[in-house]
Amino acid sequence: MKDSDEFSFLKETFKSLGSQYFDTSGIIIGPGDDAGLVKNNKETIYSVDASVSGIHFPENLSPDLIAYRSVSTAASDIAACGGSLKWILISLTVNNKDLSWMRSFVSGLKNFSDDYSCPVLGGDLTKGAQENISVTACGELNKENFLRRGGAKEGDLIFLTGTLGQAKKGLELIKENMAQIDLTSNFVKKFLSPKLNFEFAAELSCIANSCIDVSDGLISDLGHILEASKVGGEINVEKISLVGEVEDALTWGDDYELLMTISPDKKKSLLEISERYDVEISEIGKITREPDLRVIENGSLVSFSKSGYNHFNE
Amino acid sequence: MKDSDEFSFLKETFKSLGSQYFDTSGIIIGPGDDAGLVKNNKETIYSVDASVSGIHFPENLSPDLIAYRSVSTAASDIAACGGSLKWILISLTVNNKDLSWMRSFVSGLKNFSDDYSCPVLGGDLTKGAQENISVTACGELNKENFLRRGGAKEGDLIFLTGTLGQAKKGLELIKENMAQIDLTSNFVKKFLSPKLNFEFAAELSCIANSCIDVSDGLISDLGHILEASKVGGEINVEKISLVGEVEDALTWGDDYELLMTISPDKKKSLLEISERYDVEISEIGKITREPDLRVIENGSLVSFSKSGYNHFNE
Repeated sequence: MKDSDEFSFLKETFKSLGSQYFDTSGIIIGPGDDAGLVKNNKETIYSVDASVSGIHFPENLSPDLIAYRSVSTAASDIAACGGSLKWILISLTVNNKDLSWMRSFVSGLKNFSDDYSCPVLGGDLTKGAQENISVTACGELNKENFLRRGGAKEGDLIFLTGTLGQAKKGLELIKENMAQIDLTSNFVKKFLSPKLNFEFAAELSCIANSCIDVSDGLISDLGHILEASKVGGEINVEKISLVGEVEDALTWGDDYELLMTISPDKKKSLLEISERYDVEISEIGKITREPDLRVIENGSLVSFSKSGYNHFNE
Repeated sequence: MKDSDEFSFLKETFKSLGSQYFDTSGIIIGPGDDAGLVKNNKETIYSVDASVSGIHFPENLSPDLIAYRSVSTAASDIAACGGSLKWILISLTVNNKDLSWMRSFVSGLKNFSDDYSCPVLGGDLTKGAQENISVTACGELNKENFLRRGGAKEGDLIFLTGTLGQAKKGLELIKENMAQIDLTSNFVKKFLSPKLNFEFAAELSCIANSCIDVSDGLISDLGHILEASKVGGEINVEKISLVGEVEDALTWGDDYELLMTISPDKKKSLLEISERYDVEISEIGKITREPDLRVIENGSLVSFSKSGYNHFNE
């Protein structure tokens, strides 16, 4: 295929990506026109996130892995709000005209589309100095089940899914051997393809008071809940499932686990749902009245030099 | 304000941007949670476009002008489909931590929001090697009025709004004197803030058979209509309102005018609508059966060395 056909090729590939899921996603007219047309039944939710080469993923990472991770991390916000994923829009900036790069990227995008039955409603391809993947994710829910950050109440129990620190270890493994990434490692998988459980999140939305995905780091993201809810919190390090250094695990942002608060009388329901969906879950603390966050380790208050990920403070 | 508060500052500013338009746009919960919540009445349409520094606009252009232009060019697709603009999501990658840059960018975004009563539903801010602004625009319409590229029919008349070549001249003027851009020049305005007429487009959607915005260049974009509609076309250069070199005007992509085809019996309606909305419009040719594009100048067939804008062919 000629270089001059590359742009057309990718646009054509985008067009047919996940079109088998158009019906279930309410898509009437998919890519190919100036905009995609959608019929909506319930309320819809939207979130946008960009992944930049060298910032969110290592430079020279295989394009299929870049695609899968970029879309997963963006779609994680839909789960954090209790929504089911409907479709994505993707804006891709690339710094080369290598067709094999493109093919690999599209194949990673297709893997995500198939894993989550999620069609691509539209895309844009531009040239730039570095790879930049901006993903808009759309989800569907009933508005009364929208999981807000600001719904935490004094006395709520704080729960966390999964084990923190795994994605950081995965990233370290990847950087150690970029030429031959061990894709069977659970740590590597955690960084490259954080598992999104929309069914679990949808059931969670019926019982939780607040929820957020751990994208900036536990301390930082719990801080977002406390601030939005105008409450405080206390968590016990011993109760948090983690690997590696405690500070790293609690302040590193790539795990994309769900952090939630629930009223104590909903604890039994939460445990039942978690078991049904095979989701590892830990009760790590409680919501308090005073608007501060207390992190307790071995009975003592601890503090960290950093609270979470901020691109501009590196 | 401390650098470390910059991220928070921008997120807070995003939050309040255009919130006075939330109701009319169906937004139930705006930015601040992991996703924004929307109630939809009619069918909705979505489009995403990225603007990259040095590619879509000159490096060092004032951030307020970058913001306004990036959002305008993305929202143009909503008009091209006959939709009314509902909201935008914006993903911003910047290469510095200069607060005044951010303030200026947000002020340009606010100008757009106010000019088109369009709220910002959410945003994402990341660091990168160059400025990259990805904008998802959402519009609303009744599905039977969705203006497709593929609806052109043999015998249709081809109409074009405005005058081509103006944006190219504007960009030249901007590049000549970046330090003191003449914002009163109509050419400069055309490049920086192409006017989007959603009311006109909505009425157009009831009578036109196909439509596209001229973002890649007339020849290229008419080609998109012909290809999607499986028809051919013939246009007369003399009938096209343009400034500058003919080839430039017909193959340069920044004018964001609307190109449409209508059945001859709708011509009177089109002219009436155009007059009512004070939209300059020209009949430039017709749709033919044979699937090729014939460009006629002074009675002779002409061809161009390039057909339109493609980042990867520069």
